[in-house]
Amino acid sequence: MKAAVIMGSASDLPVLEKTIETLKAFGVEVDAHVMSAHRTPDSAHTFAASAEENGIEVIIAAAGKAAHLAGVLAAYTTLPVIGLPIMSSTMDGLDSLLSTVQMPPGIPVATVAINGSENAALLAIQILSLKYVELKEKLKEHKKNMAEKVIEADNNLQKEL
Amino acid sequence: MKAAVIMGSASDLPVLEKTIETLKAFGVEVDAHVMSAHRTPDSAHTFAASAEENGIEVIIAAAGKAAHLAGVLAAYTTLPVIGLPIMSSTMDGLDSLLSTVQMPPGIPVATVAINGSENAALLAIQILSLKYVELKEKLKEHKKNMAEKVIEADNNLQKEL
Amino acid sequence: MKAAVIMGSASDLPVLEKTIETLKAFGVEVDAHVMSAHRTPDSAHTFAASAEENGIEVIIAAAGKAAHLAGVLAAYTTLPVIGLPIMSSTMDGLDSLLSTVQMPPGIPVATVAINGSENAALLAIQILSLKYVELKEKLKEHKKNMAEKVIEADNNLQKEL
Amino acid sequence: MKAAVIMGSASDLPVLEKTIETLKAFGVEVDAHVMSAHRTPDSAHTFAASAEENGIEVIIAAAGKAAHLAGVLAAYTTLPVIGLPIMSSTMDGLDSLLSTVQMPPGIPVATVAINGSENAALLAIQILSLKYVELKEKLKEHKKNMAEKVIEADNNLQKEL
Amino acid sequence: MKAAVIMGSASDLPVLEKTIETLKAFGVEVDAHVMSAHRTPDSAHTFAASAEENGIEVIIAAAGKAAHLAGVLAAYTTLPVIGLPIMSSTMDGLDSLLSTVQMPPGIPVATVAINGSENAALLAIQILSLKYVELKEKLKEHKKNMAEKVIEADNNLQKEL
Amino acid sequence: MKAAVIMGSASDLPVLEKTIETLKAFGVEVDAHVMSAHRTPDSAHTFAASAEENGIEVIIAAAGKAAHLAGVLAAYTTLPVIGLPIMSSTMDGLDSLLSTVQMPPGIPVATVAINGSENAALLAIQILSLKYVELKEKLKEHKKNMAEKVIEADNNLQKEL
Amino acid sequence: MKAAVIMGSASDLPVLEKTIETLKAFGVEVDAHVMSAHRTPDSAHTFAASAEENGIEVIIAAAGKAAHLAGVLAAYTTLPVIGLPIMSSTMDGLDSLLSTVQMPPGIPVATVAINGSENAALLAIQILSLKYVELKEKLKEHKKNMAEKVIEADNNLQKEL
Amino acid sequence: MKAAVIMGSASDLPVLEKTIETLKAFGVEVDAHVMSAHRTPDSAHTFAASAEENGIEVIIAAAGKAAHLAGVLAAYTTLPVIGLPIMSSTMDGLDSLLSTVQMPPGIPVATVAINGSENAALLAIQILSLKYVELKEKLKEHKKNMAEKVIEADNNLQKEL
Repeated sequence: MKAAVIMGSASDLPVLEKTIETLKAFGVEVDAHVMSAHRTPDSAHTFAASAEENGIEVIIAAAGKAAHLAGVLAAYTTLPVIGLPIMSSTMDGLDSLLSTVQMPPGIPVATVAINGSENAALLAIQILSLKYVELKEKLKEHKKNMAEKVIEADNNLQKEL
Repeated sequence: MKAAVIMGSASDLPVLEKTIETLKAFGVEVDAHVMSAHRTPDSAHTFAASAEENGIEVIIAAAGKAAHLAGVLAAYTTLPVIGLPIMSSTMDGLDSLLSTVQMPPGIPVATVAINGSENAALLAIQILSLKYVELKEKLKEHKKNMAEKVIEADNNLQKEL
Repeated sequence: MKAAVIMGSASDLPVLEKTIETLKAFGVEVDAHVMSAHRTPDSAHTFAASAEENGIEVIIAAAGKAAHLAGVLAAYTTLPVIGLPIMSSTMDGLDSLLSTVQMPPGIPVATVAINGSENAALLAIQILSLKYVELKEKLKEHKKNMAEKVIEADNNLQKEL
Repeated sequence: MKAAVIMGSASDLPVLEKTIETLKAFGVEVDAHVMSAHRTPDSAHTFAASAEENGIEVIIAAAGKAAHLAGVLAAYTTLPVIGLPIMSSTMDGLDSLLSTVQMPPGIPVATVAINGSENAALLAIQILSLKYVELKEKLKEHKKNMAEKVIEADNNLQKEL
Repeated sequence: MKAAVIMGSASDLPVLEKTIETLKAFGVEVDAHVMSAHRTPDSAHTFAASAEENGIEVIIAAAGKAAHLAGVLAAYTTLPVIGLPIMSSTMDGLDSLLSTVQMPPGIPVATVAINGSENAALLAIQILSLKYVELKEKLKEHKKNMAEKVIEADNNLQKEL
Repeated sequence: MKAAVIMGSASDLPVLEKTIETLKAFGVEVDAHVMSAHRTPDSAHTFAASAEENGIEVIIAAAGKAAHLAGVLAAYTTLPVIGLPIMSSTMDGLDSLLSTVQMPPGIPVATVAINGSENAALLAIQILSLKYVELKEKLKEHKKNMAEKVIEADNNLQKEL
Repeated sequence: MKAAVIMGSASDLPVLEKTIETLKAFGVEVDAHVMSAHRTPDSAHTFAASAEENGIEVIIAAAGKAAHLAGVLAAYTTLPVIGLPIMSSTMDGLDSLLSTVQMPPGIPVATVAINGSENAALLAIQILSLKYVELKEKLKEHKKNMAEKVIEADNNLQKEL
Repeated sequence: MKAAVIMGSASDLPVLEKTIETLKAFGVEVDAHVMSAHRTPDSAHTFAASAEENGIEVIIAAAGKAAHLAGVLAAYTTLPVIGLPIMSSTMDGLDSLLSTVQMPPGIPVATVAINGSENAALLAIQILSLKYVELKEKLKEHKKNMAEKVIEADNNLQKEL
């Protein structure tokens, strides 16, 4: 099972590290690339158009400002495309969010929170788990671990107060 | 293959008709329900917690205002949950969008555009197509049809001008 | 008299310290917990559903981003629930505010300002003062102290200028 | 048991009818007034300052635009004050919401959704129920009725589809 | 001299009529097309990539929601691209504006006001006037006419008052 | 000639220093106070109601968040009241701006830019200059000085480039 | 005593009728003009530069969208300039408000609410009242009338309920 | 070939350095000035009105807050005017963006992203390239270089992962 993680700029990598790390922790092969909807549009199109035959099953696209990357990839594939809006230096990420989520009818982009790098990976894994049932167990385990961390934090709080 | 379409209020049905219609047109069985994160939380939880064993493979949740429905369902399942923010009478849908998309780490919601009812269905179908390969062909057909309609509109425009 | 202070994440504690401190200063017993609407939904429900019989009379719920915690607790109790929107790293708290305050008809959440930790406590105390009349005197005293501090600041200003 | 319902302008009455009706349905005596923070500030102050001794136990204040009414009343009383932001012809209610909810430390206003007239009443009733335990049963009944209406809507949906 | 007017959907035509009419009134040949960044991306790319050799000297691109059209065309040409954000049914055009104007470094889009259809044409004509000096005179005439209309409106006002 | 400069909190003083300094530089007597619409409402009312007879001719009111101060003072006087919205830690000053400027019909507040401390003073001086004609000359001088500084900056730029 | 009422477009007249009517009701002579910061900039400058010597003592400037009119007039005069942001077909007036109020240091514009046509006039009258003391009495009368209307509305409400 | 770069304040120079540098790198002569729409309006008008006869072919105008500079220059010339909104200390640049882009019909401003200094230059160069064909080759070279940098970044990413 393989997911693509596409970023509009190398400067987005720090945000995406958690995405790549989470995918790998679940055993998902990651094909990561810097590709730009505006600077290397042909690479982006070729990548998206051939993604399916290259074994990719879900695409995560991260971009900031007028974030067209996810929409542009989605135009060239019928694979599910997850959009990850990146907060840039102005507008607090609202521009990235609206540019990613407000897609016109026909070409959906599955948008997660601004800078929501872990959730982009988890959504990809949930999608992959439809086909790769072994992921279901891992997702349940992950959910349980998250719950345990909250309970532990609550226990610590009881001691502190 | 089966998708759930959950709406927070019966008044959301007009927006969701396109969602249900699109899913059915692709041959996806639809389990539609009115359920409220706030008024019938237990039904919502029971539904989400047992969705997988009831054969549901993807959930679409539509709600307006402080739209908690998608997040609340996502808390109880590891199935992919698609959030469809509904525009209500104030705030132009911004409240629904932010309440749906800005999920904290660990519990993703795949958010589509405000009132993006057709895209919610298409995203569900793309997700299902990972497992049900017959959907891939239909999605490609749909994409081709959309393209043809744009070309037809362009042809009409040439005649008009 | 007892108030619950529920936070969605241990990272919210620094904001909530003023809340807990204010409640205690007024002699209100505080039951503080880390609980997540999304990661430990069952604990949250159990807590809210049994809050009344456990002697809790008002609940303060603090959360950021798509802040569902207050609404989710309010779904399970008829106790007054105070929502405290927490500012997170993006969107300047607007997402938390709208997710907390824009509740649909039937399930109110008494929302205070973004990061308004002291006011969450004071509102809880005002609510409790309906039943515990000794709090009324303390609230009036507190109001008088606030006024005196303003007057003192004004006096200092007169000296400075 | 008695609640005050104060509106900044007679034109707010259509929105507030649901508030008054809900309070009365729960057996709460209603003292309703048109009072303006800006046009009749002295009446507003006198009203708030004497509300407690006049038997009022909670105040609902509704206003639009730069909505100062709830804050101005809260300055003169230690009773809980519920702010109901009214949507006016511009800004979609965002001005009313921020003017009502973003209160500075020391003077809380329990804010409900823009035009959330029913919730303003329900919040007042929840607050009163701390002292008037007969309201608790009615609130639970109301919650049950809401749930039943959702279930009925769901049943109707099953027939329609 | 020739300008292209590209719209993302045939439904944008009513807004663009003023654009086309204004260009023609200045004697600019218009090549108008319906083309979608998402539904017919290849046509869009082919069009943009060959626009220059087809004699087009400036491109106006109009789209709503997550408006990627102008940016996508700009990726394939070094001709100046004018972005015209279209107001759709939600978000009051803010989504279209930010998606069009907030372009990352390297690929500018010359953005005009939301639904600013006449200005899109006038900007194109100003740009063309660098090369086609006969347009300069017409632009000055147009400016004079606008001024005269304002003066006439002022004269009418003096009579009315 | 005398202007009042009222701030909602002593923490606003750093922003207001430029206001006070500018007023004094123009020879306007300044009556500066810390007064709160919410914590010392009676002082605020008494101040506003007696401002005119105390020789004050224009009032500058600065406050942040749900900034009611200017409106509350304006309710008690027919002197012109200038509102200066202060940026607080959240919402980038939008809450202060809307709370100050969106006054309902009947009670205007002359609002200047967020943190526009110098302009608040200059507006007060322009208003006073209607009566105190000696200020007119100083304002023209000030305008000339500003122009000269811009010209000097331009001259410096020419040397740098 | 004389006030100027300048509008950017004849289409703003319906909003400004209340402004002109209010000024006249207070006995203020009104010099009303359609003038555009962009289409007739020279008329606007000449008007502003000569306003003072033409006996004008305060200027009201109303404009929508990128509303530069008030700022442009303020650049040419030291008379107080009141900015009245007009709501246009998009952006709910936020563009007009920000373009009017967010003036840089040195050139204040006294901004009133979006479409706040009556308040623009009342603010002008308050400013004029510094010099024309007969207006003070009328303003107090007006304030009293407003209060009486609120009291009457309250009396009517008591009968209705 | 010559472009003007006008900034509202010397403090905008750091943002504009990239603009000037990019223009010069393409061989465009730069006429840079500090000029204020509000503080030196006459210089601004004279400059714009005589720009064409002084050999200027495109104007870039950068300003923050209520950014009137681009619009004011556009009022005095039929040359294309590029507006560059500058982010100031409040409102995250939204005020500058809306004040620049939302121009009324008749006077377009070609707006680029908030602080989009490089794009302002590239847009000017694209416009100039209509007349100066030697720029076309350089623009294509620049586009190729940008693409190569993205490809290099992608290559580096492949090594890192």
